[in-house]
Amino acid sequence: MYQLTIALEPGSKTPMYEQLYRYFAGEIRAGRLSHGEKLPSKRALCAHLGISRSTVETAYSLLTAEGYLTARPQSGFYVSDYAVFDAPEAEPADQPDTQPEVPVPAELDFSTASVDVSLFPYASWAKLNKETVYGQPELLQRGERQGDKALRCALCAFLSEYRGVKCAPEQIVVGAGQEYLSGLLLQLLPRDGVFGVEDPGYAAIANSVRSFGRELRYLPQDGAGVAVAGLEAAGVSVAFITPSHQFPLGITMPADRRSRLLRWAAEGADRYIIEDDYDSEFRYASRPIPAMQGMDTAGRVVYTGTFSRSLAPSIRIAYAVLPPALLERYRCFGGYRLSTVSRYEQAVMARFLSEGFYARYLRRVGNLYRRRRAALIPALESIPGVRISGSGGGIHFLLTDSRYSEPELISRAALQGISLRGLSSYCRHAVPIPSTLVVGYGGLRDERIPDAAARLRDAWT
Amino acid sequence: MYQLTIALEPGSKTPMYEQLYRYFAGEIRAGRLSHGEKLPSKRALCAHLGISRSTVETAYSLLTAEGYLTARPQSGFYVSDYAVFDAPEAEPADQPDTQPEVPVPAELDFSTASVDVSLFPYASWAKLNKETVYGQPELLQRGERQGDKALRCALCAFLSEYRGVKCAPEQIVVGAGQEYLSGLLLQLLPRDGVFGVEDPGYAAIANSVRSFGRELRYLPQDGAGVAVAGLEAAGVSVAFITPSHQFPLGITMPADRRSRLLRWAAEGADRYIIEDDYDSEFRYASRPIPAMQGMDTAGRVVYTGTFSRSLAPSIRIAYAVLPPALLERYRCFGGYRLSTVSRYEQAVMARFLSEGFYARYLRRVGNLYRRRRAALIPALESIPGVRISGSGGGIHFLLTDSRYSEPELISRAALQGISLRGLSSYCRHAVPIPSTLVVGYGGLRDERIPDAAARLRDAWT
Repeated sequence: MYQLTIALEPGSKTPMYEQLYRYFAGEIRAGRLSHGEKLPSKRALCAHLGISRSTVETAYSLLTAEGYLTARPQSGFYVSDYAVFDAPEAEPADQPDTQPEVPVPAELDFSTASVDVSLFPYASWAKLNKETVYGQPELLQRGERQGDKALRCALCAFLSEYRGVKCAPEQIVVGAGQEYLSGLLLQLLPRDGVFGVEDPGYAAIANSVRSFGRELRYLPQDGAGVAVAGLEAAGVSVAFITPSHQFPLGITMPADRRSRLLRWAAEGADRYIIEDDYDSEFRYASRPIPAMQGMDTAGRVVYTGTFSRSLAPSIRIAYAVLPPALLERYRCFGGYRLSTVSRYEQAVMARFLSEGFYARYLRRVGNLYRRRRAALIPALESIPGVRISGSGGGIHFLLTDSRYSEPELISRAALQGISLRGLSSYCRHAVPIPSTLVVGYGGLRDERIPDAAARLRDAWT
Repeated sequence: MYQLTIALEPGSKTPMYEQLYRYFAGEIRAGRLSHGEKLPSKRALCAHLGISRSTVETAYSLLTAEGYLTARPQSGFYVSDYAVFDAPEAEPADQPDTQPEVPVPAELDFSTASVDVSLFPYASWAKLNKETVYGQPELLQRGERQGDKALRCALCAFLSEYRGVKCAPEQIVVGAGQEYLSGLLLQLLPRDGVFGVEDPGYAAIANSVRSFGRELRYLPQDGAGVAVAGLEAAGVSVAFITPSHQFPLGITMPADRRSRLLRWAAEGADRYIIEDDYDSEFRYASRPIPAMQGMDTAGRVVYTGTFSRSLAPSIRIAYAVLPPALLERYRCFGGYRLSTVSRYEQAVMARFLSEGFYARYLRRVGNLYRRRRAALIPALESIPGVRISGSGGGIHFLLTDSRYSEPELISRAALQGISLRGLSSYCRHAVPIPSTLVVGYGGLRDERIPDAAARLRDAWT
């Protein structure tokens, strides 16, 4: 039987449920409570610690919502398998930013990682797939390291038309996901560079920078995103940014900020901007803003994108457009010798793009998200105190309700069965906007919007 | 028009054709001669430099065989696209070992990278593929980071039965190719480790070690492969080895050497052996030797393998079996957050394994290679002076003919239209066995064996 060694401080400023939550989360992350172990029942814990039942309930709900525990009906609470994927508690400098996905009931899914695949054009995809597998036996042999030419040509035409990217197929490198490609880029970029990532931001990039043993800095943002002053203060030479729809803040970087950053990049030797255009396919409030890459005349922007969010998470095809200097380095010795993407999947994707399936699909799924957003935002804004921001594109936005603290917003929603993630969990040194959550709606089923909004109204009233 | 700036030294010990070859190869690698440029005609070059026509012919043949030039009938010699993929000339410590594949006529293909896919079971593969794409729409969503469970279970059963690997599906990590997986392993293994690679050996591993900024050492080998004394002399803590069929020497590491290495690994903290079992599927001379991983009781062996050589180069599925300590690190924070392999391809491969298609295919293609080997080796050994070694498994062996130097063997074969690669090109500090070539027969069509052998006989007589 697991021995509780907790010492709660009833007079502390930290609420009791938060102390209890932190204690168990720490034990699980440290491996002292391991997968499958049963936790004390709520009743036993109340009695043992002499605390109220609601304190235990809140703590357990929070632990369950965050994926540390799994509740089994009529049985109790067990340590989840998920927990081992979390980062160990450590000094920030040694600790990679893992962002484990929180398991949530699919029908009330506010995860920023979820994508709606209900409109995925199976019939077309399967037909192209079948024709490719049966019709192109030569695809069994080794293909081009950068990705097969048919796909690179199709991507080139698509990116030029839809994103204003200026490139030749020779500049494109295809790889198995954006994390893989950022690892590849780190091998091409100057080894003694100083690499800046947005704070708050997407943790995987920071992890890659650390894994390759490169110098890492966190870049502060103002209302327009990362600024040149921030880059200079941090002494950065390479900046990873998400100008079309900053993750998680949702900022669309205005044109003048973009041109200042481009000028900064052009002015110093070995300066680069890595433009992650991850969910630029979806814009609601304004016309799509072309990619920075298309404005770059100095060859200092690497454009990257992926099909994982626009099409389906399991399609492991991402792409980078290398400027001439990095292309040269890639050709000389950078990265792996073989492509990481199945040639069949490359061939299917090439036809999916060049025969117009993808553009048609984007229009359909874009309309789906547009309708969902149009239903969800008013429903949430009708909750007194709730404000929405950063919703101009993509499939997530920020929700702020200053009547409660961020942990309170989360724990109250958890008690209603809704798992939400706070902005602070994406922040490293940045001070998060207070009382703010990051809300994804790619996985939220339309018909569950009224229920979700009603539960959140109950939670926060 | 390209300006020749060559200064040949007629009195030098380096033959004239070799000087000419080195000059042009250097110019192409340095980018001073670029893709598509036409070289001076043989006649013009003879006249310009005052050298014999056969000198120019030999140099051009060598450049063509090595992929620097492309000959266009009735037109002349042009710089190939291939050239830019070569490594720049630099100090060994800074220069990654790129091993560009030499483009050769398919019918006389002695490349070690070639794989025979003529027996690939299309009908079964395509059927499984079709059933998967149509029948499992849930595969569009994000899968398990380690690879989907069905594939890991199927791999586990297969590796246990055929390779004596002892593991649970939880220990398996699936990734898009062995180069990708070695990058992942480098993130899990101790950062301050000293990483040893076989010399001669497969250059991609050394490149990965360098890319991640880890300490790299080259390990000498005796007739039984890498020895403990070599590891200790090099101060290595992690050794990447190919015990079933060393690449390129073809050595099968004997059992006592294996157990010594395992003891070495068990004795020191943070010591690991990375067992690359890349072509263990094919054994001719003796019974297959089980993997070292199965003999390891200390949890110090990482087993890795791939389908790229046994099934088809374009199938980008490789796998690693992690011992508990590294699995723990992987779960805590190592590597990428998402799998790099298409879930559809994972699902197809899982069924291909578990329904017995793969084992049947291995028997058929193993017999094909066995017959080819049985025809090829005597044909080559009938050339006076030729000896074959390291042919007990896999799809390559060593060919030694001490009547000529290694460059002479290569250039004479090139004049007969056969491209071969010398052992020395795989050596870093090791002194290569003199007059020795590395011969792959995965891509050599059976019916071309007599012609290939006849040409080599002419070349070397």
